[in-house]
Amino acid sequence: MKIAIAQLNPIVGDLTGNAKLILDAAKNAAVAGAKLLLTPELCLVGYPPRDLLMNPSFIEAAGEILQQLAQDLPQNLMVLVGTVTPNPHAVKQGGKPLFNSVALLENGKINQFFHKRLLPTYDVFDEDRYFEPGEISEYFTIGIHKIGVTICEDLWNNEEFWGKRSYACDPFSDLAKMGADLVVNLSASPYSIGKQKLREAMLRHSVTRYGKPIIYTNQIGGNDDLIFDGSSFALNRLGEVVCLVAAFQSDFALLEYAENLRDLLPSVIKPVCESSDAEIWEALVLGVRDYVRKCGFSKVVLGLSGGIDSALVAAIATFALGAENVLGVLMPSPYSSDHSIKDAEELAQNLGISTQIIPIGELMKVYDQNLAPLFAGTNFGLAEENIQSRIRGNLLMAISNKFGHLLLSTGNKSEMAVGYCTLYGDMNGGLAVISDVPKTRVYSLCEWLNSGELGTTLLPLLRGGGGGLITNYPKEIIPVNILTKLPSAELKPGQFDRDSLPPYDILDDILQRLVEKHESAKQIVAAGHDETVVKRVVQMVMRAEFKRRQAPPGLKISDRAFGTGWRMPIAKVSVH
Amino acid sequence: MKIAIAQLNPIVGDLTGNAKLILDAAKNAAVAGAKLLLTPELCLVGYPPRDLLMNPSFIEAAGEILQQLAQDLPQNLMVLVGTVTPNPHAVKQGGKPLFNSVALLENGKINQFFHKRLLPTYDVFDEDRYFEPGEISEYFTIGIHKIGVTICEDLWNNEEFWGKRSYACDPFSDLAKMGADLVVNLSASPYSIGKQKLREAMLRHSVTRYGKPIIYTNQIGGNDDLIFDGSSFALNRLGEVVCLVAAFQSDFALLEYAENLRDLLPSVIKPVCESSDAEIWEALVLGVRDYVRKCGFSKVVLGLSGGIDSALVAAIATFALGAENVLGVLMPSPYSSDHSIKDAEELAQNLGISTQIIPIGELMKVYDQNLAPLFAGTNFGLAEENIQSRIRGNLLMAISNKFGHLLLSTGNKSEMAVGYCTLYGDMNGGLAVISDVPKTRVYSLCEWLNSGELGTTLLPLLRGGGGGLITNYPKEIIPVNILTKLPSAELKPGQFDRDSLPPYDILDDILQRLVEKHESAKQIVAAGHDETVVKRVVQMVMRAEFKRRQAPPGLKISDRAFGTGWRMPIAKVSVH
Repeated sequence: MKIAIAQLNPIVGDLTGNAKLILDAAKNAAVAGAKLLLTPELCLVGYPPRDLLMNPSFIEAAGEILQQLAQDLPQNLMVLVGTVTPNPHAVKQGGKPLFNSVALLENGKINQFFHKRLLPTYDVFDEDRYFEPGEISEYFTIGIHKIGVTICEDLWNNEEFWGKRSYACDPFSDLAKMGADLVVNLSASPYSIGKQKLREAMLRHSVTRYGKPIIYTNQIGGNDDLIFDGSSFALNRLGEVVCLVAAFQSDFALLEYAENLRDLLPSVIKPVCESSDAEIWEALVLGVRDYVRKCGFSKVVLGLSGGIDSALVAAIATFALGAENVLGVLMPSPYSSDHSIKDAEELAQNLGISTQIIPIGELMKVYDQNLAPLFAGTNFGLAEENIQSRIRGNLLMAISNKFGHLLLSTGNKSEMAVGYCTLYGDMNGGLAVISDVPKTRVYSLCEWLNSGELGTTLLPLLRGGGGGLITNYPKEIIPVNILTKLPSAELKPGQFDRDSLPPYDILDDILQRLVEKHESAKQIVAAGHDETVVKRVVQMVMRAEFKRRQAPPGLKISDRAFGTGWRMPIAKVSVH
Repeated sequence: MKIAIAQLNPIVGDLTGNAKLILDAAKNAAVAGAKLLLTPELCLVGYPPRDLLMNPSFIEAAGEILQQLAQDLPQNLMVLVGTVTPNPHAVKQGGKPLFNSVALLENGKINQFFHKRLLPTYDVFDEDRYFEPGEISEYFTIGIHKIGVTICEDLWNNEEFWGKRSYACDPFSDLAKMGADLVVNLSASPYSIGKQKLREAMLRHSVTRYGKPIIYTNQIGGNDDLIFDGSSFALNRLGEVVCLVAAFQSDFALLEYAENLRDLLPSVIKPVCESSDAEIWEALVLGVRDYVRKCGFSKVVLGLSGGIDSALVAAIATFALGAENVLGVLMPSPYSSDHSIKDAEELAQNLGISTQIIPIGELMKVYDQNLAPLFAGTNFGLAEENIQSRIRGNLLMAISNKFGHLLLSTGNKSEMAVGYCTLYGDMNGGLAVISDVPKTRVYSLCEWLNSGELGTTLLPLLRGGGGGLITNYPKEIIPVNILTKLPSAELKPGQFDRDSLPPYDILDDILQRLVEKHESAKQIVAAGHDETVVKRVVQMVMRAEFKRRQAPPGLKISDRAFGTGWRMPIAKVSVH
């Protein structure tokens, strides 16, 4: 029996478009002779739909489109479609008005609904806000074979694997007891570094514990801050990977379920990223491409300072959108070093993107003159530094508004953490491409990029101004000087990051402990960090909350990014 | 038996400071001969603590401070303290690691814990993110009297009152069955228009249904976007209000529980706001005062355009902080009308606040010159309009950075809804004071303010530049011309809001239906609105999401504000 995986890239809220994605995949599956097609969690509405779920008209429309889809699908193919359904008992029994469901469509009808039981309500997830948990696990049958249905988090409660329970029940265990022959999972599991290894290890543990093979179908695509990597896969009863679909792209795969063995047979296995740098790179490229596309843009603009952060973002944008769709703007001030312009121009040349130069010295002068009566007797300081950054932010937004280019912001996670960035200045943008990438990782990504390991598959995207392919692909995309010079905001003469911040390797370790591992200041000091430095960093992180609250959405690649999964009060006293 | 209510204003995270507030109230209660003191929900940590709860060191510190508080409290006084406690069964049984609890402290010890059972996870609330629901309702005894303990939402599930259940169980009903003589509730219930009437009606229904009197203790104070109005109250067994504490200020009240009657006797009843305008005014004044104070600021700056929005915000800030702590900045452009400056200056004079004038014409010219090569051949448009707004935003932030004044932004809810505002321009600020106030309400608040109904109690805050009281309090605080002229952004010649937007009474009605009532476009049209207008408004609201995502926190006064309780995807297709 053939089973197909449709690893789809839905647009949140686009019921018609998403239904068409499912229908197209179903036609492929039918042609390939599949008996069953799997799609990702909530793929009819796109994940995460968030407060769109609070519009009754949206829920109604989803129901209608599901009915229509059932009628449009090829005959003799069963399709599991992730969608949202009303909870009919909500008013009488209490409970949330919706279920996070899977519908089984077959021969023009909706045959059965399955409801997600374990609702993640941590990090970026808010499922208890919308959904009532399903009460029981259920299966459907194909011939004599029982196919147990689970939805994403339903499989993330193997207490042996985690060393603790996160929820009272375990749907995999329940389905095993019910005699399921095969367990399928429809997921929308966002990417974070190394996540796929974790998924495989966890499911391998469950598969071997219960002796049931599993097919895991994940969503792919960027939706605001979240990047879904896909990487759908299947494990046979021994816990061996028998199928692995592509990461970071839409894909389709066909699996063979051997009815006599009640197990999955080896099928296609796509190559995986060879390093975490490669993985992060792919994630960010996808995140940019989809955000730009799904917001209705095609071109982007960004400031090129000659520094490493904007260099990396420019490279990501170029690979995501093509060089002809990226505009770099150089805005030197009297405090800019000579090499800044040269480095930025070399970068732009390497990438094949066009540039504009708008010096800001005169604007700085006029601001100073206009503020002189008010600022008389005060010294040059943060206010004057920020003015420069905000002049640049204003120019970039003017270009964005004039030409319809989406502005990308280029701040990294280390800066965002300690507030070493200017609100309404360099923080400006529709998307913060690397705001979850620590500075040390910015370096390693650029070094990886320069190492040439990116391979040749993505090179066609690197186009010259005329739309032709770059034939002389530069050995080093990021100019060496950008990698080797001391980081500087260049907002006053002789300014370097190291004068205001601890060395980045130390800062990033403290930040990772504080932000991702929830360590206390005491624990971080016990790990070997200087107490004064730790206290200062903690204070900077807590005080910078007002900036982060107004930051653009930032692509999430870590277990805890600033953004929807970081909900910190601004007016507070902080104990660490 | 005397029971005291401490209506406290904690600072989120300030364990030491909050413990001191409780201790001071307890000393007062002891002196007054009270047997029992009630405090608000989570008042040891401040509500809402949000992700501070994810720092294990914070939870540990809260436990230690609670122990210390128990020892410091006066003898022979029972104190119910809202705090957070660990869930010891989380790891083994699955579940969230914390409870939202109440501790009963008496004679140096923690005698008992009560756990919140109904956890709100809608609008601004995320309690399922942190807390495990308590399994049962419990009471404690004073002599032969059983005092049932509930926490905020625990009382919001009277299905007879609401016409539906929101949760499976009803703690009030459970406590009544257990024979409670009195039910106490520790709340942190945020303000919205008319909320207190709703609370009284709901609890009156429960009290008469079960025949048990109730004492409801609410938090007061502004915490980021949320304003807690206090308005703690008590109902006797007949559902009569026997005690009502002040709204919008810290307060302390003493109640008498008649042991023979098993009922509460009439006690103090403080006056209430006489109109919704008065109520909103008090809420916004408190919200500004607390945000500024709790963020460590004392002074604020804002742009005065001569329009009604900035006029209202200036008035609120003046009453919240005193005229000497408010700086208004006038930034006329060549497109500003003559009366703009005059109106703004008259307003500042009425309020007694100081002003600065910084014309922006020259900066506009230099931006134009700098962008001319790039913008050649394009027409004056949105890009040029936004440049002006962003010049003003830059100047205001420079003043904020230079002098440590918090910048207040002045956009109203109607603008924020349809995106009639400039990101990084007039949206700049640490706090969006009226971003939940529709334009029509902005007018009614200003008219109410001018009517003199504000009374005399708050007048001492209106100070002249020298710190002295204003003796000649102007009849009209908001100059009449500001109230009567046509709204205009004044970003190009002859520009008026009505050229870009539907009339505000129509727009605000559509927005309220769309945003607060979750009506579909079809329903809004059916209510009598023009279909083209409705569709355009819906589209504007959906497209403006990227701006709202980067807005400062805004004070919430409605049932659905943009902000923490509005979680809309940016990259999406919207069905209405």
